[in-house]
Amino acid sequence: MEIKVVKKVMALNDEVAAEIRALLLTRGVFAFNIMGSPGSGKTTLLERTVAAAKADLRPAVIEGDIATTADAERLARLEVPVVQVNTGPFGGDCHLGANFIRAALDDLPLDAVRTLFIENVGNLVCPAEFDIGENRKVAVLSVTEGEDKPLKYPLMFREAAAVVISKVDLLPHLDVDARKLRDNLAAINPGLKVFEFSGRTGVGLDAWLAYVRNEISL
Amino acid sequence: MEIKVVKKVMALNDEVAAEIRALLLTRGVFAFNIMGSPGSGKTTLLERTVAAAKADLRPAVIEGDIATTADAERLARLEVPVVQVNTGPFGGDCHLGANFIRAALDDLPLDAVRTLFIENVGNLVCPAEFDIGENRKVAVLSVTEGEDKPLKYPLMFREAAAVVISKVDLLPHLDVDARKLRDNLAAINPGLKVFEFSGRTGVGLDAWLAYVRNEISL
Repeated sequence: MEIKVVKKVMALNDEVAAEIRALLLTRGVFAFNIMGSPGSGKTTLLERTVAAAKADLRPAVIEGDIATTADAERLARLEVPVVQVNTGPFGGDCHLGANFIRAALDDLPLDAVRTLFIENVGNLVCPAEFDIGENRKVAVLSVTEGEDKPLKYPLMFREAAAVVISKVDLLPHLDVDARKLRDNLAAINPGLKVFEFSGRTGVGLDAWLAYVRNEISL
Repeated sequence: MEIKVVKKVMALNDEVAAEIRALLLTRGVFAFNIMGSPGSGKTTLLERTVAAAKADLRPAVIEGDIATTADAERLARLEVPVVQVNTGPFGGDCHLGANFIRAALDDLPLDAVRTLFIENVGNLVCPAEFDIGENRKVAVLSVTEGEDKPLKYPLMFREAAAVVISKVDLLPHLDVDARKLRDNLAAINPGLKVFEFSGRTGVGLDAWLAYVRNEISL
């Protein structure tokens, strides 16, 4: 009984996701679904990306959070179109569903947009299970989370096309083995593109931007 | 329709949680439900706690993860009873439910246990929604996650009786305002007990242990 209902919810989500994907294709918009733990540096990655490449990416951002509009305010300062989606402050959804994205698209000037960044709710589990109509799933994993996370949260890293290892400026202060982290990522998903990044120093930004530009021009 | 089913699942969970709470009371076991983001330092806190106070806490540990037995192995090295619960590697549950705990208790020598630490799945959202029969909910929040997390994930910090702010040794290397973090915690839950802790230096361990000892002796 429970299973049937869950299947129905998932099927409905997938239908809406397919509709979004078709709509974005028509409008010439390429969408990234940016996922990762709370505080892994998703918003900082987007701030850096938008600030460095606003002219050619022509970005828009959908910010997903359970509560607050803090992240949307951070991006809006960079003068790009931003929509905040709140999944609900009291036991709100632990991930973005396609329905949230479908509604948010109505508030974006899609004709002026080439790249859509969707920042998912901070969570290394649930967002990986939901198609939201994106073209690429990207996981952000901070070095402070430890090298074992790909093994402990495998679905996220199996679903992702790329992973941004963030906060690498902190490596000298941690007992974390970055090589082991990369080995664990490769063990879970050999095809994963891996980038290292620091929002504080800007290291790695160019390689990430090259990836984004390459993907949207496909 | 969906709502009815979810209610049924929650009601069933609460029934099993109540049963666990009654059982633990009979056996003289006090249980902490340790929650927090992936890589926030939950396992390290437990390692330090068990190593420093095994004699009087007489601890046992239930380790919750989607996949791997890595955390249980870490605790087992300290020669305390440990059970690993895997919620399932392919889209596994994003939290521990009471049914997992009920089953795990059968594998613990409860007569020799005074304090039960249950480490939940790394997730700042879903675990806060599920009663698993614990006596106290504790959130672990690392300073690297940023000072805004209590506002963005309010349910976790409303439900918790205490929060351990972890990795405080990294503060000199971060653009994070620890005072603002404490203010945000107080804004969400004025009654929250707040501890600062570093697994690397051991700072703050004594205050945390004093809290644990005080709670289990109530």
